[in-house]
Amino acid sequence: MSRFAQASAAVTAAIEAELSALLPPVAGPQARLHEAMRYAVLGGGKRLRPFMVAATAELFGVRGVAPTRVGAAIEMIHGYSLVHDDLPAMDDAELRRGRPSCHRAFGEATAILAGDALQPLAFEVLARPDYGADAEQRAALIVGLAVASGSLGMCGGQLLDLLAEKQRWALDDISAMQRLKTGALIRYACEAGAVLGRAPATAAAALGAYAEDLGLAFQIQDDLLDRGGEGVATGKDAGRDDQVGKATFVGVLGEAGARRMLGELRARALGRLDIFEDRATVLRELFEFVISRKT
Amino acid sequence: MSRFAQASAAVTAAIEAELSALLPPVAGPQARLHEAMRYAVLGGGKRLRPFMVAATAELFGVRGVAPTRVGAAIEMIHGYSLVHDDLPAMDDAELRRGRPSCHRAFGEATAILAGDALQPLAFEVLARPDYGADAEQRAALIVGLAVASGSLGMCGGQLLDLLAEKQRWALDDISAMQRLKTGALIRYACEAGAVLGRAPATAAAALGAYAEDLGLAFQIQDDLLDRGGEGVATGKDAGRDDQVGKATFVGVLGEAGARRMLGELRARALGRLDIFEDRATVLRELFEFVISRKT
Repeated sequence: MSRFAQASAAVTAAIEAELSALLPPVAGPQARLHEAMRYAVLGGGKRLRPFMVAATAELFGVRGVAPTRVGAAIEMIHGYSLVHDDLPAMDDAELRRGRPSCHRAFGEATAILAGDALQPLAFEVLARPDYGADAEQRAALIVGLAVASGSLGMCGGQLLDLLAEKQRWALDDISAMQRLKTGALIRYACEAGAVLGRAPATAAAALGAYAEDLGLAFQIQDDLLDRGGEGVATGKDAGRDDQVGKATFVGVLGEAGARRMLGELRARALGRLDIFEDRATVLRELFEFVISRKT
Repeated sequence: MSRFAQASAAVTAAIEAELSALLPPVAGPQARLHEAMRYAVLGGGKRLRPFMVAATAELFGVRGVAPTRVGAAIEMIHGYSLVHDDLPAMDDAELRRGRPSCHRAFGEATAILAGDALQPLAFEVLARPDYGADAEQRAALIVGLAVASGSLGMCGGQLLDLLAEKQRWALDDISAMQRLKTGALIRYACEAGAVLGRAPATAAAALGAYAEDLGLAFQIQDDLLDRGGEGVATGKDAGRDDQVGKATFVGVLGEAGARRMLGELRARALGRLDIFEDRATVLRELFEFVISRKT
C-alpha cells in the first residue's frame, strides 16, 4: 500500500468508529429511524472529506479526535444530502453506493426524516465540549459547516442543479453551481483543519483556494465516470445525467476538454500548496487520487 | 389589550423583524429557494415558542436581542418541520396557516430544499457571536436545539406520529410521541431562557417541568381544535387526524376527558411556577392562553 493509501485507510477506520459511536443505536420506539440514519451514513463511501480535514489539520500539527469529530460531522451532512437528493421529487435515484437508495430501502417518509435528523446531529457533535476544541473554535466550526451546507452552499447548489436539467448552460454556470453543490463542503473540509490548527490567514486562504480547485476537479472526474460509468463501479445509476439532459462539465467541454481542464486545475491547485513545502505531500497525493479515481 | 396580549405582540414584532433580517434576501440564482424559505418562516404563526424564550429569559433579567435571536432560530426549525411534515410522503397537507402548504406553492423539490436549508441557518444564527451570548452559552444553546429537534426529539416524534396512523394507541403512547414531536421544542424554548439567564439548576428544572406540561396541553388543545375545527380557523386541513384514523388525545380520552386532562396539566404546571412567585405572571398567562386559544 502507498503511503497515501495507508493514511486514507487510517482515516476511514477512525471515521467509521466515530460515526458508529455518535449515531444513535438501533433501539427504542424510533429504532427504524435510527436504522435509516445509520444506513445513510455508515454505507461505505470514500470518506474523502474527513481525509481532507485530517490532512489539513496535520499541516498545523493537529491530530486525533478533533479532526475525526469534524470529519464525522461532515459525513453526516454529506450523507443526509445524498438521501434527500435521491428522493423521487429530486433525482429519483434507485442506487447509491451499490445498494438501494435510502427511500427504496426504508420508504420515503422515513428517508426524509432520517436526513432531517442527521442535520442536527452533525451540529450537536460539533457543539459538544468533548473533543478538544474550545468553545470559540466549536462556534466557528458550526458557522462554517452551516454556511457551507445551507442555501448559499450545498442546498443552493442542489436547487441550481435541478434547474440545470433541460437547460443550455455555459461552463461558468456549471462551475458556479458545482462550487455550491459539492465545492462548498469540500472547501469547508479543508478550511476546518485550519480552524483546528489556528492557522495564519495566509495558510487558511491557500487551503481554501486549493480546495476550490479540488472541488471542481472532483466533480469533473465524477462527470467523466458517470459518462463512461457502469452502476457497478460508481454504485450509482449510470449515465443518468445524459438521460435527463443535465448540463455537465463533460457535456459542455467534451471528454478531451474536461481532461484538459483537470490538468489546468491540477497545476493551479498544486501551486497553492507551495507555501507548505514538503509538509503538503499528502494533499498533493489527494489531488492526484481525486482526478484518477475509478469510483 | 391585556398585558399578556401586549407582551405577545411585542415579541411577535421583534421576531418578525429578526427573522426577516436573518433569512437570505430573495435575490441571486437561488432566489426561488430563498423565497420558499421566507414563505415557510414568515407566514404568520403565533410565535409561541419565541414568547416562551422571552418570558423565561426575563425571569432572570435577560431581555433584548439574545432571546429574540434564540426565538428566531427556533422558528426556523419549527418552520422547516412544518414544511417537511406537510409533504405528500408525510401528512400530505394542502393548507398551512390558511395558505397553500410550501410544496403546493413552490413544488416538492424546492420545499424539501427550503426545509433543508432552514436547518443550518438556525444553527448558524445561534453560533454567531453577534447577539451577546458568550461562546459557551452559544454551544450549549446549539446542543439543546439539536437534541430537541433530532431523532430523540422532534424528528423521532414525527416518525412515531406516522406510525400512529391506523394504530390503536393508549394514552401513554400518545403522550410519549407528543413529548417528542411538539414537546421537545417547547421545552427547549423554556430552557433556553434559563441558559441565557445562567439560571440556577432548580429554576431550570422547574421551567423544564412546566414546559413538559405546557407542551402536552398545547397538543391536547390542538387536537380539540382539529376535532371541532374548520380550515379557516386553524389554517390547516380540518378533521384530518380523524380521517386517517390517527391516534390522538381526543380520540382516546373523548372531548370531556381531554378537557379534564387539560385541567390537571394546568394545576400541575402552575404549581411548578410557585418558586418564581409573582415574577412568573406572564408564564401563568401563557398557559391559560395555550389552553383557551381558538386557532
